[in-house]
Amino acid sequence: MNCLPIFEPIRNDLAAVEARMLAAVGETYEPLSSALAGLLKSGGKRLRPALVILSARLFRWDPEPVTNLAAAVEMLHTATLIHDDTIDGATVRRGQRTLNATWSRSATILAGDYLFARAAALAADTSSTRVASIFAHTLMTICQGELRQMLSLFDWRGSRDDYYERIYAKTASLFAAACEGGAVLAGAPEAGVDTLRDYGRSLGMAFQIVDDILDFTGDEGRLGKPVGSDLRQGIATLPVYHYLHSGGDVLLVETALDRDVAGRDGRDRAVADLVAAIASSGAIDECRREAVELVQRAAGSLAGLGDGPYQRTLRDLAAFVVSRDA
Amino acid sequence: MNCLPIFEPIRNDLAAVEARMLAAVGETYEPLSSALAGLLKSGGKRLRPALVILSARLFRWDPEPVTNLAAAVEMLHTATLIHDDTIDGATVRRGQRTLNATWSRSATILAGDYLFARAAALAADTSSTRVASIFAHTLMTICQGELRQMLSLFDWRGSRDDYYERIYAKTASLFAAACEGGAVLAGAPEAGVDTLRDYGRSLGMAFQIVDDILDFTGDEGRLGKPVGSDLRQGIATLPVYHYLHSGGDVLLVETALDRDVAGRDGRDRAVADLVAAIASSGAIDECRREAVELVQRAAGSLAGLGDGPYQRTLRDLAAFVVSRDA
Repeated sequence: MNCLPIFEPIRNDLAAVEARMLAAVGETYEPLSSALAGLLKSGGKRLRPALVILSARLFRWDPEPVTNLAAAVEMLHTATLIHDDTIDGATVRRGQRTLNATWSRSATILAGDYLFARAAALAADTSSTRVASIFAHTLMTICQGELRQMLSLFDWRGSRDDYYERIYAKTASLFAAACEGGAVLAGAPEAGVDTLRDYGRSLGMAFQIVDDILDFTGDEGRLGKPVGSDLRQGIATLPVYHYLHSGGDVLLVETALDRDVAGRDGRDRAVADLVAAIASSGAIDECRREAVELVQRAAGSLAGLGDGPYQRTLRDLAAFVVSRDA
Repeated sequence: MNCLPIFEPIRNDLAAVEARMLAAVGETYEPLSSALAGLLKSGGKRLRPALVILSARLFRWDPEPVTNLAAAVEMLHTATLIHDDTIDGATVRRGQRTLNATWSRSATILAGDYLFARAAALAADTSSTRVASIFAHTLMTICQGELRQMLSLFDWRGSRDDYYERIYAKTASLFAAACEGGAVLAGAPEAGVDTLRDYGRSLGMAFQIVDDILDFTGDEGRLGKPVGSDLRQGIATLPVYHYLHSGGDVLLVETALDRDVAGRDGRDRAVADLVAAIASSGAIDECRREAVELVQRAAGSLAGLGDGPYQRTLRDLAAFVVSRDA
C-alpha cells in the first residue's frame, strides 16, 4: 500500500486498517464483495483512518478497537461517496469508473446501504457504545448536510455562515468524529477528547475549503474531474462568496447559477467564464487565508499534548491539507 | 394511537415507542422532520416494536433501553421501505403517497439514509454494544437480501431454499433481531435469548409467506396496492413454486415472468392470468400449510417460558399472522 510520506510513523497501523476493510467486505457474496473491495482499494488518502490512529496513539494504544473504528470511518466515507455518485449521476471519481457507472441505480443504492451497515457493525465491534453513538450521529449530520445542500442548490445569496455550516456537516463532522472516537477508545481524559475533536473539526473545514478552491484552480488531470463541477451542479462555495463580496460581476454569477437559464450551452459558457473570473480574482487568496487560519488553529490546539512523532504527524497533516494540489 | 386488540397488554409501552420515534425525528430540521414524522405516523401494525417489548417483558423490565430499541427497529423498517419505494418507483404504500412521490429521488435516498442513521443512534442509546451490533448486522442481512432479490428477478426456476433464504433476509431477520435484542436488554439467560430469536425467525417467515399469498388472493382495497405486484416486478414467490410443482401451466409462468416479452400489454395479460390461475389452485393451500407449520413451531418454542399475559400475546400474535387478510 502507498501511503502519504507524512504517514510513515503509522504505516503499519494503516496497513492493518486496509486489511480489516477488505476482510469486512470479503464476508459478503459476489458480486457485491468484489465491487466494494474494488472501491475501497481505488484510493483516497486515508486521512480519516489516519486521524483515528494518530488520536489514539497519543494516549493508550489498543490496536483492536482502533483498527475497527478506523476501518468503519473510511467505509462510512466510501458509502457516502457511493450515494453521492448515485445522486449526481457521476460515472467517474478519482479517475475511475464509479459503481453507479456499471451497476443499476437501484443496486448502487443498496450497495451503499450495505456498506453503511457494515461500517456501523465495525463501530459496534469497538465495544464502546459512546463510539457507536458518535458514529451514528455523524452519519445523521452528513445526511442532513447533503439534504440542506440539495435544498439550497442555485442559491448564491447564502451567507458565509451557511457555507460553514454546510461544510461542517458534509466534511468536518467526520474528521471531528474520527479524532474524537480515536481519543475515546484510547482512554483520553475528556479535555484531550475535546482538543482532538476541535483539531479534527478545524482540519476538516480547511480541507473542504481547499477542495472548493481546487474546483476553480486545480489541474483536471490531477483532480480526476473537470474544474467548475460545483458550479455546474448549482453549488455556490466560498470562492463565489468572496468574489461577490469584493465587487465581482453579479450578473455573471446570476447567469452561471440560474437554474432556469435557457439552453444548457448558455449556462455552460457562463460557468466557464465565472470559473476563469474567480480563479484570477483575489477571492482565491481570501479563501486560502481562511484555510490557513483554520489549520493554524488546528495545529495550535495540539500545544497542550506534548511532543512526539504522532503530534508532529498531526501538525504535518495540517500543513499538508493547505498545500495539496489534488 | 390505535393498536391491534392483541397488543392491549402493552398498549402503554407501544405509546411510549410512538412518542420516542416522533421525538427522535423531531430533532432535525424542516421539511425532513415533518416528512419522516408523517411516514412514521402513517401506519403499520407495529409488530416489530411489539416483539421487542414482549420479549423484554418476559424477563427484567427496563423501559428506557427497550423503548429505544423498539423505536430503532420500527425506524429501520421504515427506512428500508423508503429505499424500496425509491428502487421500485412506487408512489403509493398503505394507500398513502410515498415520500418518493413528492420528493426528488435524490432527496428520498438521503432521507432514508438519515432515518437509518437516526435508528442506529437509538440502538447505540441502549448502551449495549451487543444490541448495536445485532442491529447493524441485521441491516447488512436486509441489504444483501434485497440485492439478491434484485439479481434473481424474473428467475422462476429458483428452489424453495432460495425463496426461504430470501424471505429470511428480507423480513424474518428483523423479526428475529427484535426478539433477540429485547431479550438481551432484559438480561435473559442465553437459552431464553435463543428461544426468542427462533420464535421471531419462524414468525417472520410465516408473516412473509402470508404476505406473498395475499399478493395473489388479497383485497386490493384492504391491501392498499394491486394484487400481482410481485409478479409484475419479476419476483417469483412461494405460490409460484407450488403452482409449478403441482403441475401448473409452465408456459404461462414463463410468459408472465419473461423480462423480454414484447409489449408491456402482453406481459400484463399473462400476469393477470397467472394470478387468477394460482389463486384458484391448490398452491395457496400448500403455502398456507407451510405458514401454519411455522407459527405452530414459533408458538411451541415458547413452551419453556412459563405462562402469563406476554407469553399469551406472543401466541396470539402467531395466530394473528396467519389469519390476517391485509
